[in-house]
Amino acid sequence: MNTERPRLDPAVAAVRLAVRTLLARALDEQVVALGDLVLVALSGGADSLALAAATAFEAPKQGLRAGAVVVDHALQAGSEAVAARASRQAAELGLAPVVVDRVDVGTVGGPEAAAREARYASITSVASATGARLVLLGHTLDDQAETVLLGLLRGSGPDSLTGMAPLVRPDRPGPALARPMLALRRATTRQACAASGLAPWDDPQNDDPTYTRVRVRNALMPVLERELGPGVPEALARTADQLREDSAALDHFAEEMAEDLAEHSEAGISLSVPQLAANPPALRQRLVRLAVESEFGVTLSRLQTLEVCRLVTDWRGQGPIDLPGVRATRTGERVSFAAREPHAGG
Amino acid sequence: MNTERPRLDPAVAAVRLAVRTLLARALDEQVVALGDLVLVALSGGADSLALAAATAFEAPKQGLRAGAVVVDHALQAGSEAVAARASRQAAELGLAPVVVDRVDVGTVGGPEAAAREARYASITSVASATGARLVLLGHTLDDQAETVLLGLLRGSGPDSLTGMAPLVRPDRPGPALARPMLALRRATTRQACAASGLAPWDDPQNDDPTYTRVRVRNALMPVLERELGPGVPEALARTADQLREDSAALDHFAEEMAEDLAEHSEAGISLSVPQLAANPPALRQRLVRLAVESEFGVTLSRLQTLEVCRLVTDWRGQGPIDLPGVRATRTGERVSFAAREPHAGG
Repeated sequence: MNTERPRLDPAVAAVRLAVRTLLARALDEQVVALGDLVLVALSGGADSLALAAATAFEAPKQGLRAGAVVVDHALQAGSEAVAARASRQAAELGLAPVVVDRVDVGTVGGPEAAAREARYASITSVASATGARLVLLGHTLDDQAETVLLGLLRGSGPDSLTGMAPLVRPDRPGPALARPMLALRRATTRQACAASGLAPWDDPQNDDPTYTRVRVRNALMPVLERELGPGVPEALARTADQLREDSAALDHFAEEMAEDLAEHSEAGISLSVPQLAANPPALRQRLVRLAVESEFGVTLSRLQTLEVCRLVTDWRGQGPIDLPGVRATRTGERVSFAAREPHAGG
Repeated sequence: MNTERPRLDPAVAAVRLAVRTLLARALDEQVVALGDLVLVALSGGADSLALAAATAFEAPKQGLRAGAVVVDHALQAGSEAVAARASRQAAELGLAPVVVDRVDVGTVGGPEAAAREARYASITSVASATGARLVLLGHTLDDQAETVLLGLLRGSGPDSLTGMAPLVRPDRPGPALARPMLALRRATTRQACAASGLAPWDDPQNDDPTYTRVRVRNALMPVLERELGPGVPEALARTADQLREDSAALDHFAEEMAEDLAEHSEAGISLSVPQLAANPPALRQRLVRLAVESEFGVTLSRLQTLEVCRLVTDWRGQGPIDLPGVRATRTGERVSFAAREPHAGG
């Protein structure tokens, strides 16, 4: 029937399907409503350019408007021209509005973390200014695999292994974030650009080995695939999906249980020792972390959490434990947390 | 005070402390009782030889007897001589009894899995013959890190990421298994042997790149440490500890909940759809897997489990799902599992 229709490139079709599926889910879960604006975060690289093209095609079909935000990190000579070029490409794809935002990248936490921080701040502010409730990000399965591998090798705990979620609702004022392409390989986005006649920008930082992520991508992944066979990125991404589910389930139980366990007082919050003791370690640790975080806004490290748990499981009359800004004390059958005096000893 | 006492080598001290701690825990948790025999699984390699020496020293101090089991896999020429030499070393260390068991290694599941299977069968039978309720294994932190990395890169799910547990109680007739040295580096066991004048056997299979584990050890780990800095094995082992806790907690909740959810009938077992639906995906999947495993002894893959879960979360009137030996059917507000007729269609 459609014999005269030109054959759609499979890579273009794959990216469009991924965007279509995500937008349908966002509508279904009322993250966005008909007529809303969604923004594509566009760097001009192959990933976000393919995403921009697919979103320009799919969003109107679902009754959504599609624009773009181009963040100019101003870290390299010529970054302004790169941003201008990307914004022209977005406009030619039919995205509107297209906002270029030039930011100041700080230095806190290293160059990668600082750039990410500045990027998300910019995205949030542009979304707010344009009224967009959803921003689409161009992360692919390869990015996901690199994230998981980095988290694993740093031993920074299961939370960092869960990788990036496909749809994140805002927990503070700001847009929801979606990553429609987490199941697509980077090669697919590159092919989609080529098939659509879009010339992506190749960021030289993607080959700069001072970045850990670049070393993971260029030095580690090839060795992993050579020694263990192809399919390693897919395996890493699959693992992330499952770990994300496990972690979410435990968080769910901890939150459900926290209300029964906790008593608020003037000085702070306390938890029941017998109830903490009755739960498996993974839940006990989450309950302790949740209590301290909800009451004092302090996130405990694994080591700190384990030390507090020893007040429950290895009780030998030990004294209070000083945590950042918080003191944990066991008294009878409760562990209490109270704010520490600034400049107090201990 | 102890000025005349020769200084104890730190590696020997570390291995002894690890064994002492584990034996104390096994006594405390009544895995063994005073006067019981514990066996060291001895290959003659540096890891198990250091473990044998430390166990010969520590077990009597805690009122336990210590022997050894040497499994001769009969896979290499001269394996009998290797086993005989290891058994002499064990006897010289004061271990008794020392049992050499020559086994037939099959081929099921590949050479590594087949050798492991034969080894555990032998250990179980020697433990039973000698009345040992606990067998100590020589796995180190490096083995743990390799196990986690292999599991991760195969994407075989969180269960395979949890690595090896330090103490495993038997779930069928057989001894408990303990791995006292999971926090020690391989270099420590080698140093402990050298300091004690013990000459370990170097298994040439440890350098045979046909084994995936050998490639992980010799080709991957060095690249990981070079690109990401030292401490990668420790980070991997730490991750395994946390994931093991998470997984154990979810298993605990699933088992607690299973009784409320399940109804047994003549045909099999059924689960309540609203209760399955009310739980987070990680728990829902465990409940389904647990029901099928407990009723039919069948372990579902992740994909099969997800398909069954779609009868709960994506119900559009679809037909029964045929699993290995089991059929899952949604009827009203229940999902039932019944044995499939052998040779039945579908």
